[in-house]
Amino acid sequence: MKHFTAHVTVTLRRAILDVQGKTVEHALHSLHMPGLQHVRIGKHVEMSVQAADADHARELVERACQQLLANPVMEDVAITITEGFEGDHV
Amino acid sequence: MKHFTAHVTVTLRRAILDVQGKTVEHALHSLHMPGLQHVRIGKHVEMSVQAADADHARELVERACQQLLANPVMEDVAITITEGFEGDHV
Repeated sequence: MKHFTAHVTVTLRRAILDVQGKTVEHALHSLHMPGLQHVRIGKHVEMSVQAADADHARELVERACQQLLANPVMEDVAITITEGFEGDHV
Repeated sequence: MKHFTAHVTVTLRRAILDVQGKTVEHALHSLHMPGLQHVRIGKHVEMSVQAADADHARELVERACQQLLANPVMEDVAITITEGFEGDHV
């Protein structure tokens, strides 16, 4: 078994109104930063994965996304798998 | 003025207990995925930036992080700036 690190980014689909993002955008404009627009807010999930190889690690993380981390109807998921474990003192 | 896209990842510092991450980790183990460990959850913020160049875009996003998006005492921020605007129909 090898150790991998998975980075998962879960974002609302483009077609869905991101109320949290709009609120942050208005706050940024109130703070005199009108150059920042189209703010969208999502989740970032980082985890260590024990698997035989990178393909199995990705499969495991995809299963986790389908079953728990993301709502496939409303959200898009981007998964990055890197070898080794980044977390040093968790 | 050019258009850039900024991706900001805000994560709790390693030394700080991530209660949300621990809860998700326990849920994953209950779903028979014991190979997923050290789960940590953060925020992912995506936005378009209007600035003269990439350095100014980064400065603007760093200011937004300091003033609004992140808590510098408890959170780490990673910023990626890419040229062009990814959002097609926001």
